[in-house]
Amino acid sequence: MFNVKEVAKRAKEISYSLVDLSTELKNRTLLTAAKLIEEKKELIETENRKDLIAGEERGLSKAMLDRLLLNEKRIKGMVQVLKDVANLPDPVGEVIKMWTRPNGLKIGKMRVPLGVVAIIYESRPNVTVEAASLCIKSSNSVILKGGSEAINSNRVLVNILKEAAAKEGFPEEAIQFIDTTEREAVKELLQLDQFVDVVIPRGGEGLIRFVAENARMPVIKHYKGVCHVFVDEFADLEKAWNICFNAKVQRPGVCNAMETMLVHSKIADAFMPTMVELFKKAKVELRGDERARSYDPEYIKPATEEDWYAEYLDLILAVRVVDSLEEAIEHINTYGSHHSDAIVTENYTNAMKFLNRVDSAAVYVNASTRFTDGNVFGLGAEMGISTDKVHVRGPMGLEDLTIPKYIIFGNGQIRE
Amino acid sequence: MFNVKEVAKRAKEISYSLVDLSTELKNRTLLTAAKLIEEKKELIETENRKDLIAGEERGLSKAMLDRLLLNEKRIKGMVQVLKDVANLPDPVGEVIKMWTRPNGLKIGKMRVPLGVVAIIYESRPNVTVEAASLCIKSSNSVILKGGSEAINSNRVLVNILKEAAAKEGFPEEAIQFIDTTEREAVKELLQLDQFVDVVIPRGGEGLIRFVAENARMPVIKHYKGVCHVFVDEFADLEKAWNICFNAKVQRPGVCNAMETMLVHSKIADAFMPTMVELFKKAKVELRGDERARSYDPEYIKPATEEDWYAEYLDLILAVRVVDSLEEAIEHINTYGSHHSDAIVTENYTNAMKFLNRVDSAAVYVNASTRFTDGNVFGLGAEMGISTDKVHVRGPMGLEDLTIPKYIIFGNGQIRE
Repeated sequence: MFNVKEVAKRAKEISYSLVDLSTELKNRTLLTAAKLIEEKKELIETENRKDLIAGEERGLSKAMLDRLLLNEKRIKGMVQVLKDVANLPDPVGEVIKMWTRPNGLKIGKMRVPLGVVAIIYESRPNVTVEAASLCIKSSNSVILKGGSEAINSNRVLVNILKEAAAKEGFPEEAIQFIDTTEREAVKELLQLDQFVDVVIPRGGEGLIRFVAENARMPVIKHYKGVCHVFVDEFADLEKAWNICFNAKVQRPGVCNAMETMLVHSKIADAFMPTMVELFKKAKVELRGDERARSYDPEYIKPATEEDWYAEYLDLILAVRVVDSLEEAIEHINTYGSHHSDAIVTENYTNAMKFLNRVDSAAVYVNASTRFTDGNVFGLGAEMGISTDKVHVRGPMGLEDLTIPKYIIFGNGQIRE
Repeated sequence: MFNVKEVAKRAKEISYSLVDLSTELKNRTLLTAAKLIEEKKELIETENRKDLIAGEERGLSKAMLDRLLLNEKRIKGMVQVLKDVANLPDPVGEVIKMWTRPNGLKIGKMRVPLGVVAIIYESRPNVTVEAASLCIKSSNSVILKGGSEAINSNRVLVNILKEAAAKEGFPEEAIQFIDTTEREAVKELLQLDQFVDVVIPRGGEGLIRFVAENARMPVIKHYKGVCHVFVDEFADLEKAWNICFNAKVQRPGVCNAMETMLVHSKIADAFMPTMVELFKKAKVELRGDERARSYDPEYIKPATEEDWYAEYLDLILAVRVVDSLEEAIEHINTYGSHHSDAIVTENYTNAMKFLNRVDSAAVYVNASTRFTDGNVFGLGAEMGISTDKVHVRGPMGLEDLTIPKYIIFGNGQIRE
C-alpha cells in the first residue's frame, strides 16, 4: 500500500526550510518548469492519452473526458500560469504592520507560509501545475492528490516539476504526489493533522463534503456557485438585459455564472418580455415561479424548490419574481452558495443595502457575476474561489497561502 | 431534550441583520450590560455558589473550583471587559483597500462579521461575558456552550446580557445559550455547519481534540502553550537570566509561560549555575537532559521524552543543552505547540534566523514569552490565542471575528 504518512511527514519536515528560499530561486524553478513543459509536450500528450483511453473504457461522460484532456492549448495555458506566477510579487516575509508598545517592544505581523498544503482534486490535470506553482512561490510544501482518472497525466506533470526543482536547487521533497488510486489514501491523508496544515478540495460537491466531514485539519472549500442577479425595481433596463444575459450565457459551465435570476415585480412587465426573447434565442432553458412563467407559459417551465438550490453549470436558468429588495436578499442568503451575487439598480440606498446584507464572497452592483476570478480582480493566479467564511472569501491568491505571524523585537523586556 | 438545532437556526437567521447595527447601539448594549452586572452582583454570586457547592459535591479539584469562582474581583473584571470592548474601534464595514480595474470596476475588500460563532468552553464563567462582548461588538451571533459545572453561573450572565440587549434594542436572538448539561448537545452543535460558521473551543486538550475531530465547520483552536526560551551562545547573561526567570516564574499557570529552556552548550557553563540557583530559590522543579543535569545532579531530575512535550502550567521546567541554533529551532518546531518562543542573543544573524525559522504564532528576540496577549500587544480584548495556521495566528482580537468580502461597484460591465 502507498505510504501516505511517509509522504506527508517528508513534506512537513522540508517545509520549515522553505521560508528561507529566495524569490529568485523560486522564480527560476517556475520558469524552468515552464520550459520543460514546453519541451516535453509530446510526452505529456502520450501520458494524457493513456488516461483518456482508460476513461473511455470506464465510460466517463463527455464532459469528464473533456476536462481530462491536455491539448496544445491547455499545455500552453499551464506554461503561461508558471510564467504568471513567477511574475507575481512574493508574499513571504512581507511585514504588514509594525508598531512599538510603551515598554519599547516592537511588534510586527509578518507573512509566513501556511506550511504543508494538501490539494485534493478531480479530473483537470492542469490543477497539478496551477496548485504546485502557487505553493512553490509561497514557500509551501504541496501534497497533490488528483483523481484516479488522471493519474498518468498528473504523474508526468509532477515529474517535470520535480525535474525543474532539482535543476534549480529547489527542494524536491516540497512537491509530493500521492501516486495511488486507492480511495483509502485520501481518508488517511485527512487524518494527518500533525503534518498537513490545510487541505483544499477542488471538485464536485461529493468530494468537498467528504473532505469537510473527514478532515482533522482546516479545510478551505471551493464550493459550488449558485449565483444570482437581482433586477431591482429601479434597474436600468439596458444594463439589466446585458448583465443578465452575460452572467448566464457567456460561459455557463463555470461557478460564477448566474443560476437564478430574481426580478422585482414592479419592473417585471418592462423587463421580462425582452429578456425572455434574448434567452430563447440563446437556447437557455427557463424554469420559473408562477409569476415569471406568466410572461411565456409555454417556454418557461415550472420551477420546483430544488431549482432554487441548483447549480446547473449549463444553459438553464431559474427565474423568480419577488416583491421587494428584502425578499431578494433573503432568497439569496437562503438558497445561494455565498459565492457571487449582483444587483442591477440605479437606486443608491438599495445598492448599499444589497452590498451590506448579501452574505457572499463577492457582491456586485451593476456588473456581471462573471468577474469573480483572481486574475480579473487583479490578484494574479488563484487557487480557487473560497466560499468559506474564515481565512479567505472569494478568489484565493498567493497572499492567502500565507498567514501573518507575530515577530517581536525586544531588548530584555520582562512582564511585570 | 434541548433543541440545539432550533437555537442554531435562530442565531443564523438573525445574524444577517446584525451587519446593519450601528456602533453606537452595540456600544450602548455593552455598557448597559456592564451596569447590570454591577447592579446584580449578589444574584451572580448566589448562582455561582450553586455551581461551587455542586462542584465540591462532585469532587472537583481545587484548581477547577478556583476557575469556577466568581468573586468581587472577577465580577469587576467582567465589567471592565465590557467597557473595554465598547471602547475598541468597530471592525465591521472597514474597507481595507479598494482599487479600480482597467474596465472601470471598483473592487474593494470590506470587513464583515463571520456570521454565527459558537464558543465551547470549560469552567471559567467569565468567558461567557468575554466571548459574548466580542461577538456583540463585531456583529456576530454567538452560541455559548459552557461546561456543565458552570451552568448556573453562565445562565445568569447570559440572562443579564439578554436583558441589556432588550433594553437597548439589540436583537436578543443573537445571544444564544445552550442551556443543558447533556453531552450530546455539543456533538449535535458540531454537525450544524448550515447554521454555525465557526466554532472556537476553549479549554483542555481533550475538549479541543474532541471539537477538532467532530466539527464540520471551521474550528479555530486555542491550544496548549509549550513555550521555549533559547539562550544562544551570544546571549547577554543578565538579559537571559531575567527573561528565563520571568517567563517561568511570573505566572506559571498560563499558556505563554515557558515550559522548556534550551541552552547553547558554549554558554552553559557561564549561564547555568546562576540560573539554577535562581530557580531553586523560586522553588521551580527542574528536569534536564544529561548535560543540563551536570550543573546540579542532585536538584535537577532527569527529563524523559514526555517532558519535551509537556505543558506543566506549574513551577516545573524542562531544560536541555543544545549544540547549535539549528538544533534549538528543530527542537522547538518538533516538540513545541507553535505558540510563543523566544531567543536571547546579541547576534544579529542568529536573531533573524530564529525569527524566520521558528514556526510559532509569536516569535521573540530578547523578551519574555509572557507578552503574548491581545491587550499587551495593543489589540484590545481577545477571544483567545490561536495556535492554528489559518485565519488567525496568535491573539484573536475583534478584527479576527470578521472576514473581508469583495464589494464591486460597476456601471454595467459585462465580461467579454
